[in-house]
Amino acid sequence: MKSEEIRFAHRFDQVSGSAIREIFKVIAQPGMISFAGGNPSPNALPDELVSEMASYVLKQNGKQLLQYGATEGYPPFVESLKAFVQEQLNCPVSAVLPVTGSTQAMDLLCKALIDPGDTILVENPSFLGNLQCMKLYQANLVPVNSDDNGMLMDDLEAKILQYHPKMLYTIPTFQNPSGRTLSADRRRKVAELANQYHMVVAEDDPYRDLRYCGSPLPAIKSFDTDGWVMFLGSFSKIISPGLRVGYIAGDHGIIRKCTVGKQSTDVHTANLNQAIVDQFLRRNLLPDHIRSICAEYGAKMRMMLDELESFPAGVRFTRPEGGLFIWAELPDHLDAVKLLQSAIDRKVAYVPGTHFCVDGGNLNTIRLNFSNSTEEQIRTGMSVLREIISAAL
Amino acid sequence: MKSEEIRFAHRFDQVSGSAIREIFKVIAQPGMISFAGGNPSPNALPDELVSEMASYVLKQNGKQLLQYGATEGYPPFVESLKAFVQEQLNCPVSAVLPVTGSTQAMDLLCKALIDPGDTILVENPSFLGNLQCMKLYQANLVPVNSDDNGMLMDDLEAKILQYHPKMLYTIPTFQNPSGRTLSADRRRKVAELANQYHMVVAEDDPYRDLRYCGSPLPAIKSFDTDGWVMFLGSFSKIISPGLRVGYIAGDHGIIRKCTVGKQSTDVHTANLNQAIVDQFLRRNLLPDHIRSICAEYGAKMRMMLDELESFPAGVRFTRPEGGLFIWAELPDHLDAVKLLQSAIDRKVAYVPGTHFCVDGGNLNTIRLNFSNSTEEQIRTGMSVLREIISAAL
Repeated sequence: MKSEEIRFAHRFDQVSGSAIREIFKVIAQPGMISFAGGNPSPNALPDELVSEMASYVLKQNGKQLLQYGATEGYPPFVESLKAFVQEQLNCPVSAVLPVTGSTQAMDLLCKALIDPGDTILVENPSFLGNLQCMKLYQANLVPVNSDDNGMLMDDLEAKILQYHPKMLYTIPTFQNPSGRTLSADRRRKVAELANQYHMVVAEDDPYRDLRYCGSPLPAIKSFDTDGWVMFLGSFSKIISPGLRVGYIAGDHGIIRKCTVGKQSTDVHTANLNQAIVDQFLRRNLLPDHIRSICAEYGAKMRMMLDELESFPAGVRFTRPEGGLFIWAELPDHLDAVKLLQSAIDRKVAYVPGTHFCVDGGNLNTIRLNFSNSTEEQIRTGMSVLREIISAAL
Repeated sequence: MKSEEIRFAHRFDQVSGSAIREIFKVIAQPGMISFAGGNPSPNALPDELVSEMASYVLKQNGKQLLQYGATEGYPPFVESLKAFVQEQLNCPVSAVLPVTGSTQAMDLLCKALIDPGDTILVENPSFLGNLQCMKLYQANLVPVNSDDNGMLMDDLEAKILQYHPKMLYTIPTFQNPSGRTLSADRRRKVAELANQYHMVVAEDDPYRDLRYCGSPLPAIKSFDTDGWVMFLGSFSKIISPGLRVGYIAGDHGIIRKCTVGKQSTDVHTANLNQAIVDQFLRRNLLPDHIRSICAEYGAKMRMMLDELESFPAGVRFTRPEGGLFIWAELPDHLDAVKLLQSAIDRKVAYVPGTHFCVDGGNLNTIRLNFSNSTEEQIRTGMSVLREIISAAL
């Protein structure tokens, strides 16, 4: 068979899935310092605890865990999860659905709501995995302008009026890739606009617990009066991404439609994985675990920001209060895609910012991750980037 | 918010997801004898072994298992899986992709190939989970006629010529729900037609190892010359459905497109779950485990068939050589949906066959599962059904 004989679906016409993939192949090379991924530090991955919990839950309830489960989730976990979410958000939620990583929450929400051509408003830049998800649902992605405090409310309302969007996709806290956080007053306003204009908000908030300074902000969901805000949560950054457990919380009718979509997506999230996360919640282990993660990541972030201070004039960068990413803008005439090859030749990797931008462009931007490097790697790697950028000026 | 204010996607217009769901709520009641699900027997679920394996793989390689993995799969599992598939099918496959249960294989294959309105040929009746999946991709489902040896090749070719389908979806071995098996000569013919007319075949074969008599048949895939047959496999029936590990094997280009689709569906299948199934393969535990499962299920199937022999005249049923299901047709004027309430009142559940039929109808049919009941439950439950059907005649 020749590949060109296969008639693939048109949803792939604008999606190649290859740009980042090539970078991730490169960072697997031995000796590479990678600022490219969004991976937790190995220290943050509780392998011994998960092993003990797996034995415990399989001993307690092994036959049920290995049997088919309900699409709605493993009942003990649904219970502990709902309590956890309501405490986190400090507001009631009418329903929660455990999903196979919060990426699946976005996939199911698009499945429930998006017909080809429907408009979704997005931050620009935004998380490329979910941009790809929305493109595969053939959504019309319209960027909303931002400043250092996140989306601009005037622009958001103007675009709601112009495009009548089905959905707004936002990462309000320590945004991926920009590191920006939406201010409290704007969070309230987003909820108000969603309720006023009957627009679903997908509030994707996987980084909210990774705060290294400043004060926590209320979730957009906490200002939601009529149920238009769906909250997407993840245990990937605070327990383990490899377990693939996340959740979606909010309006019962939308969750119900997501559940029907999930029936023919993967039937249910693996019971063993739900039961392990359930143990973390029931034993109340997350607060201490998160504190220890934040101490490590905070120190690494400060070190990377310190390094950036001595970069050549004309390099600007965000100063996040948490999360996993710093966003840097090089002088306009520099091309971060081209510079990446020089960096890789010297064993340092990052992701060019253009891959996160809805319409490409922004070739002078880069996303830097600090969580999965040692302090020594951060010092060495940032020195290499400083030299490469200086040489290119 | 009122539910009617939400503008759900049109892909849900024909899908409610509710018919079976109500039945499964009922079978959770205590004391219910259920012939309704497709659940393995508790005896077939290796909880102690899985517990030992989880500890072992987390000790060996815990940090990597808890970290993000590649969408392409956990490398040791991809290796052992490819060897396993090639041995099972007795033919080379160009690529394998681990997925989150074989339901996800179908979802990804539809995502890769199906635009709204594209025709998929299906057996009728067929597995309702995957019928729902195809409906959510807004495919035009066209049934192919069958006899006791599976699809009729004349009808298949006529419908290929009439509808130019993108895909054929078939469960060739111990079909769900009919229990029928496609004969060897027809398997060869299906592969030939697929190659001749450039039609992808989704060969969904989760029951092939559950054979209680007769001889194994070659997979359709083994007759595939040009790569048009995609093989969907599952470990749900031979290890555990709760772990959610399946796979798709076949043409590299199609697998590549499924992989890009999977990136924004769930990123990757949970590493721990892949590593556990990898242990089953590397320790070569499946042959013995399958032998013990088949001994149990075979005895139960023979008992259910024996019970059916003494049902009233006019009740016909399939006599499968394996799998999990028997398909029964009651006299035409009986309505299995209405009879279900009488059965449930007497603590016996089944699924009315109409739910598996592409265009509904066939109200006189029922699907019976024997794997998840004890021999005593089979005797008692079948007596109840015999009485209810006799009384309705």
